Amino acid sequence: VDGPVRQRSLWQHNLALVLRRTSATTPISRAEIAAATGLTRATVSSLVEDLLRAGLVAEVDPAPRARPGRGVGRPATGLVLSATGPAGLGLEINVDFLAAAVVDLTGAVRHHVVHRVDQRDRAPERVLADVARLAAEAVGGVDLTVAAARLALPGLVNGDGLVRVAPNLGWRDVEVRGPLTTARHWPDLPVSIDNEANLGALGELAAAPALTNFLYISGEIGIGAGVVLDGTLLRGAHGWSGEIGHVTVSPDGPVCRCGARGCLERYAGQEAIMRAAGIRCGPALSADVAVGRIAELAEARDPAVLDALRGAGTALGIAAAGVVNVLDVDTVVLGGSFAALAGWLDSHVERELRDRVLTARWSPVEVRASALGSAATVIGAAGAVVRGIRTAPAAWAGTGR
Amino acid sequence: VDGPVRQRSLWQHNLALVLRRTSATTPISRAEIAAATGLTRATVSSLVEDLLRAGLVAEVDPAPRARPGRGVGRPATGLVLSATGPAGLGLEINVDFLAAAVVDLTGAVRHHVVHRVDQRDRAPERVLADVARLAAEAVGGVDLTVAAARLALPGLVNGDGLVRVAPNLGWRDVEVRGPLTTARHWPDLPVSIDNEANLGALGELAAAPALTNFLYISGEIGIGAGVVLDGTLLRGAHGWSGEIGHVTVSPDGPVCRCGARGCLERYAGQEAIMRAAGIRCGPALSADVAVGRIAELAEARDPAVLDALRGAGTALGIAAAGVVNVLDVDTVVLGGSFAALAGWLDSHVERELRDRVLTARWSPVEVRASALGSAATVIGAAGAVVRGIRTAPAAWAGTGR
Repeated sequence: VDGPVRQRSLWQHNLALVLRRTSATTPISRAEIAAATGLTRATVSSLVEDLLRAGLVAEVDPAPRARPGRGVGRPATGLVLSATGPAGLGLEINVDFLAAAVVDLTGAVRHHVVHRVDQRDRAPERVLADVARLAAEAVGGVDLTVAAARLALPGLVNGDGLVRVAPNLGWRDVEVRGPLTTARHWPDLPVSIDNEANLGALGELAAAPALTNFLYISGEIGIGAGVVLDGTLLRGAHGWSGEIGHVTVSPDGPVCRCGARGCLERYAGQEAIMRAAGIRCGPALSADVAVGRIAELAEARDPAVLDALRGAGTALGIAAAGVVNVLDVDTVVLGGSFAALAGWLDSHVERELRDRVLTARWSPVEVRASALGSAATVIGAAGAVVRGIRTAPAAWAGTGR
Repeated sequence: VDGPVRQRSLWQHNLALVLRRTSATTPISRAEIAAATGLTRATVSSLVEDLLRAGLVAEVDPAPRARPGRGVGRPATGLVLSATGPAGLGLEINVDFLAAAVVDLTGAVRHHVVHRVDQRDRAPERVLADVARLAAEAVGGVDLTVAAARLALPGLVNGDGLVRVAPNLGWRDVEVRGPLTTARHWPDLPVSIDNEANLGALGELAAAPALTNFLYISGEIGIGAGVVLDGTLLRGAHGWSGEIGHVTVSPDGPVCRCGARGCLERYAGQEAIMRAAGIRCGPALSADVAVGRIAELAEARDPAVLDALRGAGTALGIAAAGVVNVLDVDTVVLGGSFAALAGWLDSHVERELRDRVLTARWSPVEVRASALGSAATVIGAAGAVVRGIRTAPAAWAGTGR
């Protein structure tokens, strides 16, 4: 509450309220919305008109009455979120792939493409030109109006779109928005830029809405995290939250590329797991293939690989236990490539959580694999755009009255 | 936004808005409130009447005009938060002291008593009877209406007032509200129960309102923390956040009383510091006196004490760096007895933060001593009551129109 509630913001507030009821129970009639919100029938009808005009909701035929003749008058027309309403475009730059996804207003994934190419030796402008092309293909590939784009990157992103550092891409102080939006193929769309683990956490939140307090840990070449408390992603003072890869697991441990000793990435990053397992890695072996190989060897009970996964899971558990002790989240979600390895990591993570979280005896911390795996980030990015429209529909529905 | 904005909640919203303007600029006239909020003069006057009637604001004489004759008509009457309005009672049970404080509606501390007695060998009912007596003295000692009480405890507190565990008090599954409110001296007041470090963080927030993102670390016999992001205390899924004392500093370190290895408390808890410094501790030496003794020896450059403080500061820095990496807070506040030792701890904490926080090169983390020291918790507890009234004045001002 930062200003007085007057007519304009009353309309914004109530428009969002009606849209939220429509997405919660679907289909829903105008009368049911009025009953659920306490708004008058006339107000609801007027707000629904605004939402219909903006293409945010659609009318559906009333369901046939179960017992004809019992009802009085015509059955009411149902309202649903419009699957042809404004959609969100998610884009992702990661160390060894690019991805694009379109999510419609109802949350359904309508397009999802992953382009597996190692990005480490490439100039940022070339990477961004490829992203622009993926964006154009995505927008052209769906029969929807795309409202905006959100780009995920594995690094520290400033609010103005400057990538401070993306260590595993080798990027430092790279301005992203300009080169992206002036690239030849870029569709004319507003874009915002965000950290990949943050968006992965939002993807998880959308995929499992009953989960409202969790630590999402995303394992790719690096390790990032997103913390969701009360259904809200914690972004921190500068938007730089989630750097769990650089939490100290052992203060005198090996030196990390960040310069500190004993960071989580040195124990549970993909390269650390591969090294511990005795698997040779490098540009020739993409992380995707490497994870498949680790899973295959673990399945075959290869002792070195099982040891490597025990070490990684233990380190993940120690770092996660610290977060749970301080923040009291009740679930740890293993995302990114950790999702594919969760079956071998989870018992070690659970053991450390049980031993190291003070409250674990009253409320054991649940460990689960991400529902979306490596796709969480790009789907979360697209979903974040849609979530913005659904939370504040007035911006999309125009100036109202 | 969870319901429709209608007349009743409009009144609640705007009442809070007018009260917030009154506390932000003081004294302020009705016309200035109208200009700042966009509400009409008539609406502001009516809301101010409600606030005056409830005793939440008071009128003050207009300041004399700097240049008489320039103004048109009478100068406007100023409005201020009422120093005689409803006040909050803070109470604290800690390992070696009990405390009570009264904070008035303007945030001024009107009463503060600390009763230094070791609480470790005492039955909870006896401790609570003493707290009830302190509460009665506090309420009787101020010429104010006390609205409610908040009790701080160094442990895990459930929402219903059950203390799950307060390890350093030796309490386990102790029901607090019943015995407290039926104790002989208890003044007839509603009471809620909360964790001491959480309330200390709220005290710090009230004392230094410009600080909106910080990790508050409270050192008493145990170590607790409160995390404030965007001016909001993070409470976690069960209200059990802040257990930084049990964050792992070194996974193979000494066993903690919680059963895990290498917890922060084993390196930076008061007993750990005393042991490392070669100072004998026990019930004969209260923590208060012990901290004074440590500071005295550090001042005299006693090598064992300086070593002990270096070890404690390093461990605090490692644990704090993990929190900063994950949450991106920009300040670490050393509270409780750490405030008195901050001059010897801070360089070690700063060094670890500089080395271990990924973003420290762009935005160094500030380390500071708590503005309130050991009093932060009980003043924060009283302030939390007042904050509740100021945020939702409608509950105090009655049913309105």
